[in-house]
Amino acid sequence: MARGTFDYMAGGADDEVTLRDNVEAWTRMRLRPRVLRDVSTVSTTTTVLGTEVSCPILVAPVSYLRLVHDEGERAMAAGAAAAGVIMALSTRSSCTIEDVAAAAPGAGRWFQVYLLRDRGWTADLVDRAVAAGFRALVLTVDTPVLGYRRRDVLNAFELPEGITMANVASRVSPEVAEAEGLLAAYQAPDLGPEDVAWLAERSGLPVVAKGVLTGEAARECIGAGASAVVVSNHGGRQLDGVLATADALASVTDAVGSDAEVYVDGGVRRGTDVLKALALGARAVMIGRPAVWGLATSGAEGVQAVIGHLCFELRTAMALAGVRHPGEIDRAMVDLRSHPQ
Amino acid sequence: MARGTFDYMAGGADDEVTLRDNVEAWTRMRLRPRVLRDVSTVSTTTTVLGTEVSCPILVAPVSYLRLVHDEGERAMAAGAAAAGVIMALSTRSSCTIEDVAAAAPGAGRWFQVYLLRDRGWTADLVDRAVAAGFRALVLTVDTPVLGYRRRDVLNAFELPEGITMANVASRVSPEVAEAEGLLAAYQAPDLGPEDVAWLAERSGLPVVAKGVLTGEAARECIGAGASAVVVSNHGGRQLDGVLATADALASVTDAVGSDAEVYVDGGVRRGTDVLKALALGARAVMIGRPAVWGLATSGAEGVQAVIGHLCFELRTAMALAGVRHPGEIDRAMVDLRSHPQ
Amino acid sequence: MARGTFDYMAGGADDEVTLRDNVEAWTRMRLRPRVLRDVSTVSTTTTVLGTEVSCPILVAPVSYLRLVHDEGERAMAAGAAAAGVIMALSTRSSCTIEDVAAAAPGAGRWFQVYLLRDRGWTADLVDRAVAAGFRALVLTVDTPVLGYRRRDVLNAFELPEGITMANVASRVSPEVAEAEGLLAAYQAPDLGPEDVAWLAERSGLPVVAKGVLTGEAARECIGAGASAVVVSNHGGRQLDGVLATADALASVTDAVGSDAEVYVDGGVRRGTDVLKALALGARAVMIGRPAVWGLATSGAEGVQAVIGHLCFELRTAMALAGVRHPGEIDRAMVDLRSHPQ
Amino acid sequence: MARGTFDYMAGGADDEVTLRDNVEAWTRMRLRPRVLRDVSTVSTTTTVLGTEVSCPILVAPVSYLRLVHDEGERAMAAGAAAAGVIMALSTRSSCTIEDVAAAAPGAGRWFQVYLLRDRGWTADLVDRAVAAGFRALVLTVDTPVLGYRRRDVLNAFELPEGITMANVASRVSPEVAEAEGLLAAYQAPDLGPEDVAWLAERSGLPVVAKGVLTGEAARECIGAGASAVVVSNHGGRQLDGVLATADALASVTDAVGSDAEVYVDGGVRRGTDVLKALALGARAVMIGRPAVWGLATSGAEGVQAVIGHLCFELRTAMALAGVRHPGEIDRAMVDLRSHPQ
Repeated sequence: MARGTFDYMAGGADDEVTLRDNVEAWTRMRLRPRVLRDVSTVSTTTTVLGTEVSCPILVAPVSYLRLVHDEGERAMAAGAAAAGVIMALSTRSSCTIEDVAAAAPGAGRWFQVYLLRDRGWTADLVDRAVAAGFRALVLTVDTPVLGYRRRDVLNAFELPEGITMANVASRVSPEVAEAEGLLAAYQAPDLGPEDVAWLAERSGLPVVAKGVLTGEAARECIGAGASAVVVSNHGGRQLDGVLATADALASVTDAVGSDAEVYVDGGVRRGTDVLKALALGARAVMIGRPAVWGLATSGAEGVQAVIGHLCFELRTAMALAGVRHPGEIDRAMVDLRSHPQ
Repeated sequence: MARGTFDYMAGGADDEVTLRDNVEAWTRMRLRPRVLRDVSTVSTTTTVLGTEVSCPILVAPVSYLRLVHDEGERAMAAGAAAAGVIMALSTRSSCTIEDVAAAAPGAGRWFQVYLLRDRGWTADLVDRAVAAGFRALVLTVDTPVLGYRRRDVLNAFELPEGITMANVASRVSPEVAEAEGLLAAYQAPDLGPEDVAWLAERSGLPVVAKGVLTGEAARECIGAGASAVVVSNHGGRQLDGVLATADALASVTDAVGSDAEVYVDGGVRRGTDVLKALALGARAVMIGRPAVWGLATSGAEGVQAVIGHLCFELRTAMALAGVRHPGEIDRAMVDLRSHPQ
Repeated sequence: MARGTFDYMAGGADDEVTLRDNVEAWTRMRLRPRVLRDVSTVSTTTTVLGTEVSCPILVAPVSYLRLVHDEGERAMAAGAAAAGVIMALSTRSSCTIEDVAAAAPGAGRWFQVYLLRDRGWTADLVDRAVAAGFRALVLTVDTPVLGYRRRDVLNAFELPEGITMANVASRVSPEVAEAEGLLAAYQAPDLGPEDVAWLAERSGLPVVAKGVLTGEAARECIGAGASAVVVSNHGGRQLDGVLATADALASVTDAVGSDAEVYVDGGVRRGTDVLKALALGARAVMIGRPAVWGLATSGAEGVQAVIGHLCFELRTAMALAGVRHPGEIDRAMVDLRSHPQ
Repeated sequence: MARGTFDYMAGGADDEVTLRDNVEAWTRMRLRPRVLRDVSTVSTTTTVLGTEVSCPILVAPVSYLRLVHDEGERAMAAGAAAAGVIMALSTRSSCTIEDVAAAAPGAGRWFQVYLLRDRGWTADLVDRAVAAGFRALVLTVDTPVLGYRRRDVLNAFELPEGITMANVASRVSPEVAEAEGLLAAYQAPDLGPEDVAWLAERSGLPVVAKGVLTGEAARECIGAGASAVVVSNHGGRQLDGVLATADALASVTDAVGSDAEVYVDGGVRRGTDVLKALALGARAVMIGRPAVWGLATSGAEGVQAVIGHLCFELRTAMALAGVRHPGEIDRAMVDLRSHPQ
């Protein structure tokens, strides 16, 4: 993998404080296991927005997956489907919406929306996703402008020949489309509550607001029509120095209650991290980079292997913690003394 | 010592967060010594489940001790006896129950139970331990499945020729018995409160529930019939990311009160660690790895030397803290400000 | 740049505990961004003491800028003016007050006062600053004596030939004027509340008291007539081991309320640091060393570039945090759990 | 300096956790300076037990100073006297009581007492100290047995030819006297409250109880007749893992109130450390190792230089903190948020 590509995928904004803190915050948290429970059968099965998944793991939207593997988003979709989980396809996909849908026909999949200045373009993308059977829209709410990613600046990172934003490439000249800056230029800085409502109405799909770190922000998204929120700091790639997602999660789930589903991404690397997330009230986690490394290594099989191993780790962690299914996991399983309240 | 053997003994689960935290948590804690006390005579003598021991130290059950010394569990038993303390023999002993009993005839010793799927096998092992004069059963409650120990996976660790689970080898073909995976396959994932009661009744011995980290778990074990609990995370070898035992201890002793004895293992390396454990309400500590390194170095004499030195350190620490016997040690001897409450 | 010059600019007092802590304290703090806000237009414009500036950044007074660039304070003033912000000129300027004023004629600028034992000298300096159009006096209150800067002692640092305290050089023989120790010897150790009042009256200008770290100190300065205070520890160059400015800021703004403007310097390196400062109630930050490195590298253009980049980072951070202008930034944007209260 | 000698002086007990923590605890603490105070004259002069000293610094008792300089305790006494402070002479002095008294005839000096099993020997030593004009007894209360100092064990450290416990050498054969173990064997493990009273009565001198870390211990010493206490952990050389003295100090001064003077030693390396100690209620600090390194380097002049520099640092710190004499220093000068309460 080229250095520039690795840095694009692995890096974060500014000093990467949040990038590191995301991982460390899960590690700092301590589990409180139960004993004397019959864990002969442990099931990680759950539902997200009503769709049954093999484990409480979602594949996060990641841009330009063809950077790391020739099959790109198609292989990611196939790997996620094989693992029994849902993948969220990025607006910045390097494969078309229709090709990705064809790569895993029966699988649940979600479409990530970067709202564009031209709401018409957005509407077209959403319409195509609906037509292709995507079941939810993941609206990114933490990217009104792009974070300053120093690795990319230092590497003068550019998309290589042949990697394009496949879903909007037809609308603009190839020279423009290939420029990394394109979407940034077209991306809407004025995303507001009315856009959440509009997307829900236009698509008839549930909207998942991705990128909240506080209870207030989560409540606003739900008030605007979101069916779920993702506690996320965009993997440390947007505003550096924000709360680690593990540190933000509990206050969001407390504020949301049963009004919406809450997911979390950022720094989830182990089954015990998933267990901690569920203990703090998340319904599922999203993983981005781990899935990318799986894709880079072995395509769809690599993706499936990464998800499968994380799911195995979760099942082991659940058994060792004395829980048989996600519904038995509650706040008492984490030690809150060592954690900001 | 072969790398694989060292890693098997020294390693922990997943990222070894808890393995490290166990040691560091004792180190973080601060002592509050007394002065102007006559410490001309300091005695570390105490009792565990009614048996007098030279110091509040127990030898934890460790699997396959013949991996590190040819005399294995026999030498460990002899060394513990020479030091005046009790050893807990593992179900996964590489010497037979009867041979170990013969190696230290007059000594107090306990038998560790991994409950097996076939309760009959368990019953037979327990009956043999009773017949051989073992005085308590240490029921491991934190191992319904095995933790994921990456060192062993990376090393493709296997028991070498000639090291077997001596107490169950006769029941199965040698090829199967020698496979590390055997006991895991036969181990009961459905251990429940009724098993605690059954073991107590079957054996007529007190049951020590090993592997609790919360007051709730301790209360459940006692409610099920346990006479004592061990605050333990299996030396960081099972569920990674749980509370360090030093951080969990006070909440367990608070919940248990005088209803049962509480021991603690994990990261105990110094006499001051033992003093801190007693200050937080433990009746004794268990040591595993330090005793193994003593065994590996010099057999029974090495075990005796390790225990003797730790006991010397405890006696020195007690004198310097102004206490003459374990009964004088109380919670006021540790500074709780620097510690999770 | 000579080692001695670098150390003079970069170093701090004693063990440089505060020098490091200033930077780390901003980094430790966590932001709580808002979402679903229209950030099509983000303005960093604000006012300080009634003067409009392009962003809430002030250039801190720094001694002997000709050490790092031949144009010294003239270039710093020109760069600050080009960036649309105010520079505070040090009493220890290596250019004359009048030359600096001429270098950026229309720009707002402030004059930093080290009160001298001879109040008459001070009066003359202040009168010249008033005459040259400076709009506020920044009275340093944390330097009754000089901090012990070991780097300078070890380097036997001396001002090189040709660098002098330009504004007082005419009063004393060159030999004396060139000695670094001069101002220290003449500096007033008896600065009191009456001097604040006297400076305000003499100059007719607002007085900014620079160097408070507590609410009590801020209240005393305001009570003595200061129109603003700077939460500052002199960049870690005076009393080592004091509070990092990021840790001190909230208690000062709480104590001051709306009675005066509060600025803060020390360790501000990123736009997110500025955002955090404003969230804690600061009206603006002061930067010293970053501007010096810009000056050393490219003169006035370097200064402008450094300020411009910091301002760009702030604008990005504001957009990502969901705020459109400084007035929308409040305490809820920082997570106070991870911070001393 | 021989490695063994360096380690004997520099080292601590067990894992040297407390040795390191002593230094770090002062460094962790944060100062809150005052401004707008006239600090034209700053005086560090104070009294300890009624004797005026040039600054609130005492030289701690240290064993066998002839290990590092031929003039040993005589030079230490002369250096302390030249600096205007009081030195406490160790029972384990390598010079006689009378020789040390002669080395600094007019100076205030205290005598440190290790209570011996044979109270008669102790009485003789005390009588000699009284006769030689020592003005207080510093009774070490944290050494009923010796701490386990691994460096000394690993070095097989022994006193070299010619270095003896000069004050008891005449009582025993030279072979025995030269053995490091001697005093340990004769040292009283049964030191109790009655010994404090007996020493005070026998000597007619105030007794300073050295080695308390809690309010309870301080109250017991005062109740037994002590006129002052030293918050000390014997420089980390006795019970490892106890509270750092900086962390223990406030609770001791709170418990003692105005009933006795409180001093503190351990990790004091900077004038700001002294200022912090006084802010927490100490009347003076004791320094051991810094004075030893001064002695090793330049004899009495080195001792004087070390104390003089520390005093200079304190005076600078006081001026920068806005205090003119020790009586103006109070608890509000330290930030208690970052500190265990």
